Amino acid sequence: MAEKDLRALFVHQLKDTYFAENAILKALPQMAEAAQSEELRGALAIHLRETEGQVKRLEQVFQLLGEDVKGVDCEAMDGILDEAKSVISDCDDPEVCDAAMLSAAQAVEHYEMTRYGTLIAFARQLGKQNVVQALNENLEEEKAADRKLTSIAESRVNRQAA
Amino acid sequence: MAEKDLRALFVHQLKDTYFAENAILKALPQMAEAAQSEELRGALAIHLRETEGQVKRLEQVFQLLGEDVKGVDCEAMDGILDEAKSVISDCDDPEVCDAAMLSAAQAVEHYEMTRYGTLIAFARQLGKQNVVQALNENLEEEKAADRKLTSIAESRVNRQAA
Repeated sequence: MAEKDLRALFVHQLKDTYFAENAILKALPQMAEAAQSEELRGALAIHLRETEGQVKRLEQVFQLLGEDVKGVDCEAMDGILDEAKSVISDCDDPEVCDAAMLSAAQAVEHYEMTRYGTLIAFARQLGKQNVVQALNENLEEEKAADRKLTSIAESRVNRQAA
Repeated sequence: MAEKDLRALFVHQLKDTYFAENAILKALPQMAEAAQSEELRGALAIHLRETEGQVKRLEQVFQLLGEDVKGVDCEAMDGILDEAKSVISDCDDPEVCDAAMLSAAQAVEHYEMTRYGTLIAFARQLGKQNVVQALNENLEEEKAADRKLTSIAESRVNRQAA
């Protein structure tokens, strides 16, 4: 990585997050299509539209910083999405398919939450208040998406217990 | 992955989490050694001891399920820890080093939080109440570790703003 200062580290993580959001943008339609329950399919479809907006907000952040809009490969997100893809291709039982999909989708959300948390801390540390709002909007959307996925997972558990 | 049922999926994710915790156990001493601030070094050292306990709890879960204690390679955690390692080897400025380390450590915590959240949902769905407590203790420790790291990150920001 060879980051020499905090600004370089911040821009590197911005690129990592931009790569990750774009990778999710590509994966979400397949995930939504493979989801068995209408509720999960709907939640993934809504998150696809949110992710499109998040990518645009990240592009604004690059512009406000005077940096080229660019991604850098993010192995962690690649690993999480490879797991999601293997779930999709292996899906026999609809219940198991959705459980695995929920798990993969929540791993995605948590990765993004931690990245936005870090980006916001770095931006504040660098005195870049003008980019904090856009990053915070993305963070709040990721948190809400994770809560929605948790409530779907819990309603599954309660249905099975009934 | 070829999971044919929810129990197989649960055991697979348990192995993934066991692999991840053991990988963290190996990485934490290097991370703590490379940390510049005493506060961060201390937090990582405490989390190392907690992680040892978490690995033991996971081994109990395997036993309660009648399964062999075994890990499966987890690409997502490999990716996160590779980033942490590159941070350690590239560290020039102590401030930047700690900022990057905090970021990597929080990505680790978030990955574990989402895994334990999923494992607990699966265990409840499978009626395996006897393993929920151990998994929940690990989840609560991860959440507390993440809160601690967030408070260290925020105190850095406030110090610089002062």
